[in-house]
Amino acid sequence: MNDQSTRLSELRDVVQRFVQARDWNQFHSPKNLSMALAIEAAELMEHFQWITTDDSRALADNPDKLSQVREELADVLCYTLALANELNIDLSAALEDKMKKNELKYPVKQYRGRYGPEDA
Amino acid sequence: MNDQSTRLSELRDVVQRFVQARDWNQFHSPKNLSMALAIEAAELMEHFQWITTDDSRALADNPDKLSQVREELADVLCYTLALANELNIDLSAALEDKMKKNELKYPVKQYRGRYGPEDA
Amino acid sequence: MNDQSTRLSELRDVVQRFVQARDWNQFHSPKNLSMALAIEAAELMEHFQWITTDDSRALADNPDKLSQVREELADVLCYTLALANELNIDLSAALEDKMKKNELKYPVKQYRGRYGPEDA
Amino acid sequence: MNDQSTRLSELRDVVQRFVQARDWNQFHSPKNLSMALAIEAAELMEHFQWITTDDSRALADNPDKLSQVREELADVLCYTLALANELNIDLSAALEDKMKKNELKYPVKQYRGRYGPEDA
Repeated sequence: MNDQSTRLSELRDVVQRFVQARDWNQFHSPKNLSMALAIEAAELMEHFQWITTDDSRALADNPDKLSQVREELADVLCYTLALANELNIDLSAALEDKMKKNELKYPVKQYRGRYGPEDA
Repeated sequence: MNDQSTRLSELRDVVQRFVQARDWNQFHSPKNLSMALAIEAAELMEHFQWITTDDSRALADNPDKLSQVREELADVLCYTLALANELNIDLSAALEDKMKKNELKYPVKQYRGRYGPEDA
Repeated sequence: MNDQSTRLSELRDVVQRFVQARDWNQFHSPKNLSMALAIEAAELMEHFQWITTDDSRALADNPDKLSQVREELADVLCYTLALANELNIDLSAALEDKMKKNELKYPVKQYRGRYGPEDA
Repeated sequence: MNDQSTRLSELRDVVQRFVQARDWNQFHSPKNLSMALAIEAAELMEHFQWITTDDSRALADNPDKLSQVREELADVLCYTLALANELNIDLSAALEDKMKKNELKYPVKQYRGRYGPEDA
């Protein structure tokens, strides 16, 4: 599988099959999945906690560390898909809607090179 | 856009165009993005913090709350894609690899109906 | 040490001595410490992610699990104190001020038995 | 109240009285409190997400921002105390024990100026 050819629904199915085969839907309440997602996001963050923002860019050149980060990112995606499955949320439509909202909230003219209002 | 027809690379492009138009790659170090991802995951969790696991399943029937959760989940996905873009990680391949690892770690026979070793 | 007799400043000193002995103030920027705190909070959460809210109360009766949770809670407190040290924040005064704000935000009459506006 | 004279038990009592007056113990299962703690830690992190580690040190000189961070840190402490109350954990003893473990895990000789094994 690769991002060029894989549709979201295919990834959702991979996760759904895994969960169903283990009868894990009983544990996959949205509350529990939101915790699992936050926990995986924290494990991802762990790889960057003591290094500078510059050094975190250099991590892409370290195959060992990149491979660990890649695995944590997969975990985050896995629970994102699992939560979408449980709540019947179409992720592509949700992202499209949110990006439209973001376009209005962060107009290019005003936010080019600035991350927020306080970053003058 | 919908999950049935949208490929991962299309979603990645949506995010990448948004970021580049605002010249935000300068802020999007992996360290910062991992923080952003954890923050969005926490905002998602906020909707479930005081309710029971059972009530969290019922949230799918409340259009107002579901719409809020949908938006937070889109934020989580957005930063997942942004981080994949910065580190050149193919998410579909990463997920496929991780699920294979999970298959070995959680054999169906042993984990059917059990979430972990301590859940006898 | 015990909570009955230990003052906040004593705990802050314990952490400060540990950090200074290792010359770790260089890593203890508020940004990094806020990440460390969030990571420890996630590790604490891990112990509760797949169980019900009721079962999480029963954890107090399981000495093994309680001891693990106790250690994670100590880690959270440790980084809370470290951040207070770095930013020269008096925690007792900060808590006192916040609880006064909370008294106004959540009047007893209105919130007795209700966790928020939507919990009618 | 200030850290020089305030004992941990006094802070615990402040939180306990607030919770009991609102009959909120019913919501304060350890599971829910661990989520609340992680959410507050994320809100704290939000103040640092887009700035460099160096700039995060300068935040102490900005009274407005420092006051916001102070309030988030109070929230983190508040839920730490609430969780200690629910599980009957003595925080001072827990911290003392954990720091002894840390002394053995991170000997000064080996870790002076280094945050971890990979930081050669």
